[in-house]
Amino acid sequence: MKEKIANFIENKWTQRFIIFVIIFNSIILGMMTSTAVMAKYSNLMNQLCNICVWIFTVELGIKLYVYKKNFFKDNWNLFDFLIVAISWIPTGGVFSSFRVFRILRTLRALRLITQLERLRIIVQAIIDSIPNVSWASVLLLIIFYIFAIMGTTLYGQDFPVEFGSLPKSMFTLFQIMTLEAWADIARDIMTKYPLAWIYFISFILVSSFIVMNVIVGVVVNAISEISQDVKKEKQKKTLKDSDLELELFKLKEQINKVENLIEFKKV
Amino acid sequence: MKEKIANFIENKWTQRFIIFVIIFNSIILGMMTSTAVMAKYSNLMNQLCNICVWIFTVELGIKLYVYKKNFFKDNWNLFDFLIVAISWIPTGGVFSSFRVFRILRTLRALRLITQLERLRIIVQAIIDSIPNVSWASVLLLIIFYIFAIMGTTLYGQDFPVEFGSLPKSMFTLFQIMTLEAWADIARDIMTKYPLAWIYFISFILVSSFIVMNVIVGVVVNAISEISQDVKKEKQKKTLKDSDLELELFKLKEQINKVENLIEFKKV
Amino acid sequence: MKEKIANFIENKWTQRFIIFVIIFNSIILGMMTSTAVMAKYSNLMNQLCNICVWIFTVELGIKLYVYKKNFFKDNWNLFDFLIVAISWIPTGGVFSSFRVFRILRTLRALRLITQLERLRIIVQAIIDSIPNVSWASVLLLIIFYIFAIMGTTLYGQDFPVEFGSLPKSMFTLFQIMTLEAWADIARDIMTKYPLAWIYFISFILVSSFIVMNVIVGVVVNAISEISQDVKKEKQKKTLKDSDLELELFKLKEQINKVENLIEFKKV
Amino acid sequence: MKEKIANFIENKWTQRFIIFVIIFNSIILGMMTSTAVMAKYSNLMNQLCNICVWIFTVELGIKLYVYKKNFFKDNWNLFDFLIVAISWIPTGGVFSSFRVFRILRTLRALRLITQLERLRIIVQAIIDSIPNVSWASVLLLIIFYIFAIMGTTLYGQDFPVEFGSLPKSMFTLFQIMTLEAWADIARDIMTKYPLAWIYFISFILVSSFIVMNVIVGVVVNAISEISQDVKKEKQKKTLKDSDLELELFKLKEQINKVENLIEFKKV
Repeated sequence: MKEKIANFIENKWTQRFIIFVIIFNSIILGMMTSTAVMAKYSNLMNQLCNICVWIFTVELGIKLYVYKKNFFKDNWNLFDFLIVAISWIPTGGVFSSFRVFRILRTLRALRLITQLERLRIIVQAIIDSIPNVSWASVLLLIIFYIFAIMGTTLYGQDFPVEFGSLPKSMFTLFQIMTLEAWADIARDIMTKYPLAWIYFISFILVSSFIVMNVIVGVVVNAISEISQDVKKEKQKKTLKDSDLELELFKLKEQINKVENLIEFKKV
Repeated sequence: MKEKIANFIENKWTQRFIIFVIIFNSIILGMMTSTAVMAKYSNLMNQLCNICVWIFTVELGIKLYVYKKNFFKDNWNLFDFLIVAISWIPTGGVFSSFRVFRILRTLRALRLITQLERLRIIVQAIIDSIPNVSWASVLLLIIFYIFAIMGTTLYGQDFPVEFGSLPKSMFTLFQIMTLEAWADIARDIMTKYPLAWIYFISFILVSSFIVMNVIVGVVVNAISEISQDVKKEKQKKTLKDSDLELELFKLKEQINKVENLIEFKKV
Repeated sequence: MKEKIANFIENKWTQRFIIFVIIFNSIILGMMTSTAVMAKYSNLMNQLCNICVWIFTVELGIKLYVYKKNFFKDNWNLFDFLIVAISWIPTGGVFSSFRVFRILRTLRALRLITQLERLRIIVQAIIDSIPNVSWASVLLLIIFYIFAIMGTTLYGQDFPVEFGSLPKSMFTLFQIMTLEAWADIARDIMTKYPLAWIYFISFILVSSFIVMNVIVGVVVNAISEISQDVKKEKQKKTLKDSDLELELFKLKEQINKVENLIEFKKV
Repeated sequence: MKEKIANFIENKWTQRFIIFVIIFNSIILGMMTSTAVMAKYSNLMNQLCNICVWIFTVELGIKLYVYKKNFFKDNWNLFDFLIVAISWIPTGGVFSSFRVFRILRTLRALRLITQLERLRIIVQAIIDSIPNVSWASVLLLIIFYIFAIMGTTLYGQDFPVEFGSLPKSMFTLFQIMTLEAWADIARDIMTKYPLAWIYFISFILVSSFIVMNVIVGVVVNAISEISQDVKKEKQKKTLKDSDLELELFKLKEQINKVENLIEFKKV
């Protein structure tokens, strides 16, 4: 019985059906952003949405029944579980004013990543590259923090919109790092502090240097992995070479024997 | 007879003439955008344009006659055929109001790619890199879609220009991904929703992370192909090594024989 | 005694305490940018700040006592020393109007880099990549200088804000290199000098070409280092091969001997 | 005599002197952009400038006398010659109104590249990467041309500033390719042509795809050159392996001989 259920849930067609429901649900959620649609079909949309959630819940329920504790060992399953669990947070009634809860429903579209292997591989690759990036991010954060304190201290009083407080300064610095309208801000401030270009240009240079370093690091890492594969193949070959040496050693021994035999005969 | 025609159409000078006609046609099409030129020489221009289309049609007609069904097996030929076919869609009379049809004529300049091998190689390389990019694009699309629904739900009512509907939100998100004037929009929205920076900065980080991943993927892929060549050469060498082992094996056998002979003599 | 002190200062827990003090001090410095906090707790904040400086001074003092001259052989120690030394520049009294001195305190957050090895590695990597970049920077500077003189000569009189003087032109060119609002400036100037697009587009192409070259150089350099490692391993392997040859040579000699013995017996 | 002059002109100190004069001249040219300086020291500046040109002329004259025809075989010498020749174009009198001639003087700073080997290497690397980029540039130009004709035809009448003529459209497209304020233009046009987003987004995608392809090509090319070096070393090793085989072949022959001897003895 349990095996049959397991077969059913892992069936190619069941999986395709779930993918279809995820896409269908995403389209429904997209249509629900239109006020014109909601004015007419509000009820229908909400019911379709509920049906999708029920399907997801039943699917996960079966999986939980089949795999039991092993279900949560896979991070992707955990991810699916959390997304479906979030869907059961009530959005109507007292909570209707919290638009944030309604937004969380949208995350269901992310289940597509769990269902399609190719997407999972890409996401996994991105997640795997995070450790390489994380320490550079800490460095970037320190630089951000230092420049933010400097900016707030120096220009906070005169330019409260950009550098009024530490969070505002950090937002402005993020904007400058993306090179978005940085010159407008810099020219504004330079009318009062002619030396402000030092602050802005040094920040742009330092931050873009770190970001460049991160990207180069990621590229080199990805390439070194290929290189690693080449190395492993080489080691296998080296083993073969040591086989060869063994053969030579044996050969030498045999020749020694021949030599001894001849010498023996001489005697 | 047919061979002669085939020789004529594949002739270096015929091909050069076609390239010349393509460039000439492109220049004519460029001049036709000038109202000053069109006011005076409208007729002449249209007639020159028609002559070019006739030349293309005759060229393709001959090729079709020579290669028959094989003609369509080459995607570049199919591409040429479609572009010339589009040129015969009537643009005058009832259709004169559809400027879109007139625009399609411009695509004839793309025939230059079909004619010049170096351009074909580059375009082929770009097309070949699409599969590597396509799944990342699907991922990007999912992220776009989710953030678009979120944006429309959260900011749609108060900022109808940027987030009024799902398509508007997606356009705005594309703009933000290119980092174009994103800070203006973000600051605008942050005056009403102070926490909107979470939405914008998380979107910028996620989208640029995926794009970086795509670029790294393309670079690594291109490098791994070189690496593959190196590997193949290695395999050839490994074969040689196995030859060497074979030689050693034979050697050992011979020595065995010598040994046996000597032993035999002893007896 | 001295050894005990050395053990104490290099102790894992002492180091963790120092890291904690650095982070604590950074947070205090961040809070000191808030006028609301400073209005109430100005004294407390300043005192906490002073305690941190004292802790740093004692720490470095002990290290100086333990390692003596060797202390300054490590550039990171020198860096720490300078940052703490800067902290003792008086900021109150006569100097209170110089906000610049107060800013230098912020650099203490950089000590986190000295304390955390992973950050030190990244910073070292960035510093190591500077020589590769430095000559390209000289080239970029020459290009900047030439275009700045050209810009000032050509557009200085009519557009004093952007090209009024050599420094202003260089700032504008830096802005154009980051592609920030370059089209606005170019369109402005093109209304008076229709050929100005040559100036702007050629500068964008040249500068982005050099920057691309720099980035490619850094990537290739990083990869060639991996490649170098592979080469070294290969050389080790080549040595093994020469061992193999030696073995073969010895084998040949032995066989020669066998041959001679047999020949001798024949006689 | 001639040898002495050759020694003098290639002398380390003479070269350093020329480098000094180039930098000095560049500084003078920089100072000449300041109206304040020119009001006071106009004569002095012009005379210093003339002296520099005389020094350059004498230097090149000597080199021409020493190397004769071989002088022009080096492209860098030709480059030097042209820059100094340009300096003798009269700028006063009738020509004083042509500011363009005065600008050409600035190019003298480029002589620094000819004098410093490290800069020459970088510039050479950039020039060498042009062939890789040139065909992609032709492709980009075709795309630009097609989109420019489309843009002029579709939006020329309603938006004369951006798409009024073919050159204007190409400038606008270059601006869009750099992602500078593209959204402003797109939103403007979309108020009248709601489908204009297809035009803009497809252009951004196509152009950035080609540019990415170019950059990847340059990186891969640079890496494949390293890889080539590795391959060559490998070929040298493969030769050694064939030596090994030769040794084995000789060994076999010797063993054969031994065998024959023994067999012969048996008889």
